[in-house]
Amino acid sequence: MRLAELSERSGVSTATIKYYLREGLLPPGRQVNPRTAEYDEEHLRRLRLVRAMIQVGGVPVAKVREVLGHVDDDSLGRTIRLGAAMWALPQLPEPDEDDEYVRAAHAEVAALLDRLGWENTKQLTTISPSYRSLVVAVAAFRRTGYDWGAEQLAPYAELMHRTAVLDLDNMETHPAGTERVEFAVLGAVLNEPVLRALHRLAQEEETARRYGFE
Amino acid sequence: MRLAELSERSGVSTATIKYYLREGLLPPGRQVNPRTAEYDEEHLRRLRLVRAMIQVGGVPVAKVREVLGHVDDDSLGRTIRLGAAMWALPQLPEPDEDDEYVRAAHAEVAALLDRLGWENTKQLTTISPSYRSLVVAVAAFRRTGYDWGAEQLAPYAELMHRTAVLDLDNMETHPAGTERVEFAVLGAVLNEPVLRALHRLAQEEETARRYGFE
Repeated sequence: MRLAELSERSGVSTATIKYYLREGLLPPGRQVNPRTAEYDEEHLRRLRLVRAMIQVGGVPVAKVREVLGHVDDDSLGRTIRLGAAMWALPQLPEPDEDDEYVRAAHAEVAALLDRLGWENTKQLTTISPSYRSLVVAVAAFRRTGYDWGAEQLAPYAELMHRTAVLDLDNMETHPAGTERVEFAVLGAVLNEPVLRALHRLAQEEETARRYGFE
Repeated sequence: MRLAELSERSGVSTATIKYYLREGLLPPGRQVNPRTAEYDEEHLRRLRLVRAMIQVGGVPVAKVREVLGHVDDDSLGRTIRLGAAMWALPQLPEPDEDDEYVRAAHAEVAALLDRLGWENTKQLTTISPSYRSLVVAVAAFRRTGYDWGAEQLAPYAELMHRTAVLDLDNMETHPAGTERVEFAVLGAVLNEPVLRALHRLAQEEETARRYGFE
């Protein structure tokens, strides 16, 4: 398809597509003559991914380029390739290891992983930004004076694991390789707002069930 | 306790506490003489809530004041008081009702609520920002070309409902009234980053279980 059709099918303006091409976020089309390039379904899929990351996820252009570098790197094993792409997405600030709440949070998260038997995650604690984000988030909770530790976190972690099983099941309906990694990144950007909204809506439903509308 | 002790126990500087007092985010202490005021446990609790909203949640000062107005409004019924406080927290942008994806998302979310039997939520669709956030998030997913509707959303919604049950059970361990509403707001600000991190960590665990580290 030509640039105009790519724009129409994606809902992204031709000016923005040209910008993404210049920034290397979209691979060049196949040049059919000096003034015209042809684009295919892979361009369309990639364009939708880039737009979702930038417009919905608020991911900066340099980060998008980094994420796509991992998405396209088929020299990596599947777990690490998927991890690298997800880890390049924006994360919480790094934990301050000198902070007493951070140290307590590390201990609670370690106890949590033991209790859950998440043996794979235990091997990733030194490299996974998700692990560090969890430490930061737990430390922030503890700093407010609430005793938020392994015991309180475990039932939430079990539910989040069931959520992750759904994510992976959905991902596996897509062809293995680049397309599957693309869907995982898209899921991280687009599904997190869906989950947050569903969670808040469920809180409202449950509150009304317990207390009515008085 | 005096200002210095309030600062020490909360970890918030005296300058910041004075700023919160001036902005009306913290009720004044009991004046024991013209130069000295006394603060109590309620001030400490409120201060921790304000700091979590501003520092962790990035909630603007004017929004914090609005949230606290609802937290303190004991003329409202419990469901609406809790809702009003949560709804004053920052939300996704409002849906554009002229957009075809937004219209499709409304239909899918309506079908979802029917399928789930969330009868209370159905009564709140015109006033709940969480409902509108869900419509915006589902529309963004559909815009990328994925058929994301009631059928795909239902299993996620069930898990988020179980998460909400845990939230309410935790909330009910706190004394009814203002303290309980404060905990709910704190939970929304502090627990969402915990859940997001647990979810990503669970995805890593599940990915490694399925694909190993190859």
